[in-house]
Amino acid sequence: MALIVKKFGGSSVGSTEKIMNVAKRVLNEKKPGDQIVMVVSAMGDTTDDLIKLAEGINKEPYTYPREMDMLLTTGEQISIALLAMAFNTLGQKAVSLTGSMAGMHTNSFHTKGLITDITPERVHEELDKGNIVVVAGFQGTDEHGDPVTLGRGGSDTSAVALAGALKADSCEIFTDVDGVYSADPRIVPSAHKMQEITYSEMLEMARLGAGVMQPRSVEMGAYFNIPIHVRSTFTTKPGTMIREDYTMEEKNFDIRGVAHDDKVVKVAVLGIPNTPGIAHDIFSALAEANVDVDMIVQSIRNIEKNVTDMVFTVASSDRAVAKPIVDKVAEKLGAVAVLIEDDVAKVSIVGAGMLGNPGIASRMFGALSKAGINIDVISTSEISISCLIKKDVLKEAVNAIHDEFFQDK
Amino acid sequence: MALIVKKFGGSSVGSTEKIMNVAKRVLNEKKPGDQIVMVVSAMGDTTDDLIKLAEGINKEPYTYPREMDMLLTTGEQISIALLAMAFNTLGQKAVSLTGSMAGMHTNSFHTKGLITDITPERVHEELDKGNIVVVAGFQGTDEHGDPVTLGRGGSDTSAVALAGALKADSCEIFTDVDGVYSADPRIVPSAHKMQEITYSEMLEMARLGAGVMQPRSVEMGAYFNIPIHVRSTFTTKPGTMIREDYTMEEKNFDIRGVAHDDKVVKVAVLGIPNTPGIAHDIFSALAEANVDVDMIVQSIRNIEKNVTDMVFTVASSDRAVAKPIVDKVAEKLGAVAVLIEDDVAKVSIVGAGMLGNPGIASRMFGALSKAGINIDVISTSEISISCLIKKDVLKEAVNAIHDEFFQDK
Repeated sequence: MALIVKKFGGSSVGSTEKIMNVAKRVLNEKKPGDQIVMVVSAMGDTTDDLIKLAEGINKEPYTYPREMDMLLTTGEQISIALLAMAFNTLGQKAVSLTGSMAGMHTNSFHTKGLITDITPERVHEELDKGNIVVVAGFQGTDEHGDPVTLGRGGSDTSAVALAGALKADSCEIFTDVDGVYSADPRIVPSAHKMQEITYSEMLEMARLGAGVMQPRSVEMGAYFNIPIHVRSTFTTKPGTMIREDYTMEEKNFDIRGVAHDDKVVKVAVLGIPNTPGIAHDIFSALAEANVDVDMIVQSIRNIEKNVTDMVFTVASSDRAVAKPIVDKVAEKLGAVAVLIEDDVAKVSIVGAGMLGNPGIASRMFGALSKAGINIDVISTSEISISCLIKKDVLKEAVNAIHDEFFQDK
Repeated sequence: MALIVKKFGGSSVGSTEKIMNVAKRVLNEKKPGDQIVMVVSAMGDTTDDLIKLAEGINKEPYTYPREMDMLLTTGEQISIALLAMAFNTLGQKAVSLTGSMAGMHTNSFHTKGLITDITPERVHEELDKGNIVVVAGFQGTDEHGDPVTLGRGGSDTSAVALAGALKADSCEIFTDVDGVYSADPRIVPSAHKMQEITYSEMLEMARLGAGVMQPRSVEMGAYFNIPIHVRSTFTTKPGTMIREDYTMEEKNFDIRGVAHDDKVVKVAVLGIPNTPGIAHDIFSALAEANVDVDMIVQSIRNIEKNVTDMVFTVASSDRAVAKPIVDKVAEKLGAVAVLIEDDVAKVSIVGAGMLGNPGIASRMFGALSKAGINIDVISTSEISISCLIKKDVLKEAVNAIHDEFFQDK
């Protein structure tokens, strides 16, 4: 007997037919005595449709985030009702619960709420009555009892957090891919599916561009130490297990995977008089505007004049916000110029195995060099190495690095 | 300064444009210091669309009434969010509250819940902050915290009950007609709008076929003694005030209005041996099946054999349910035959003024006689007289009676 939380996203429940298929699939896999909690998103385009409706009232509906949450939380409420009905129709007792009813408490940051606490007594109660419990993902209520949505990646986070609070045996995240791959299979046809990956490696993969899981939900898994099984909606094959540590030989890999991100821009602030606090000036202004910065490199431009260059990357989506902020700080610091390069991409290797294994970095650089690819910026973390390269050679770069580390596996 | 509850139905909020119009209209009429609570239904066809969606899961979705309520309550949640957004967009602070958040407590009769209690603290709190409070009609929560819809006429009932619990000064029900008329204006062009009508007269009018208000909400008004102002969504003219007693001369009318109902069938159980309890046998069986019975007449068919006939009417919509029940009881009682007539209609006059005024009845019968219309069955209550006639002369009958009582007014 196991308590399993299963999360299905919007495309898996995009029509009543698909909802029936999800219910059948879950019942086929259910072992006698298993307790099942489903966490589901809004059906397919429902959220987009609701946003469009709101735009009929106000072109900028997010000006009223509380009312947007009141509106958007109906999306999941519709899908949980239908899925519970589907289970009942198939002869399996089931009840639907909104985020509020399932005890998901959040702060009051409407449209991007954070989970503050989970009191899942009602979920346990309904499980004990023999029900499959169908919970609305992506939502909770704040201390006033107002509905709050969790923002990007919210449904995965709901599922993992609820699994943690319920002390579930595992949390299964159903997606349109069948697991986590050593590289994006659309780019590297020979990429292999991992059986296991640690939370920290998965976080690093996600941070560096692997789109399978939102970092937020992986952090939640690590916090509760709940194994997350990433698997396909369309097959019953096992996917990839994200957990604290490995249970098998896969541990022997030097690196775990190759991640890439072509949605970055390079920002270079050139010719800054090198006085204490310049990094703080630049990056605190960006942090205030909620802009994530990566691959920071400071280099001396002219040692006699004590003038320095500061180079870093930001997400392409933050370009418009970041540019005026950087321009303003650069002017204040007396910088010579601010350059922004759009034709860049980041390629990274990730793996706990590279710790204390200096050969790994040189193999990565060697693979790029052999492929005739220039490296612009390098940055490293404990379990990853990233190189900034030109965007037009990204595919070759990912393949060259993947071949170097996985060719014979 | 007044506290006013205003209820707008689904057709008044059927599109984002209409929602904006409702908001503008309410702000135009709002006096400084007025506290406004809006109660709204789901947008136009939303409820029907949701039911259709559920039929994609199960052809009989009401088999799972709890899940239907989870599904259907999203309809109002969408319209309250949009209307609150509309007020805010127009510069008026507003917040939306679900039935649950507004303190509407119900029993657990899903899809036809009854209000058990209202604890509207949150509504007062938000009003005191200067908000217009937009509440979801038609819904509340039961003791488990599960959403429950109120069934037919539920939004009007929500509005009147909330007005009662808030000790509001009045409750305005906005509809597609501009008040309560002395007869259906589509049938009697000279029908006049009443300025006032009492709860009991309105109840009798509604019971006898006047479709403006659901009896349930009128009863709720009488219970709380909250004046209900029935008025048009499309004009700002005063409509009809439903209240405990008259404030003006209208009291002098002998009768208040002519109601009619062409959605009835006549049931005749013929030749029943007249023993004690036959009425009970027939009508308790129908009551168990929730079939409302009206115009009951028992008459002696053959005094020597002590054989009797029992005639009554039921709503056309109950015909299919009533028929087998009556057939079964009739067989048990040894009746000769059960006849059902579909081509009948009921015409009624209503007015507290007829109490102790026997001339009224004879004027009604005289008017029908002069028009050459046969009366099949007559029944009376304290404040109404009803005649069953052939359906094809209903229009002439309503006009003849209306002329008799209102021609010179």
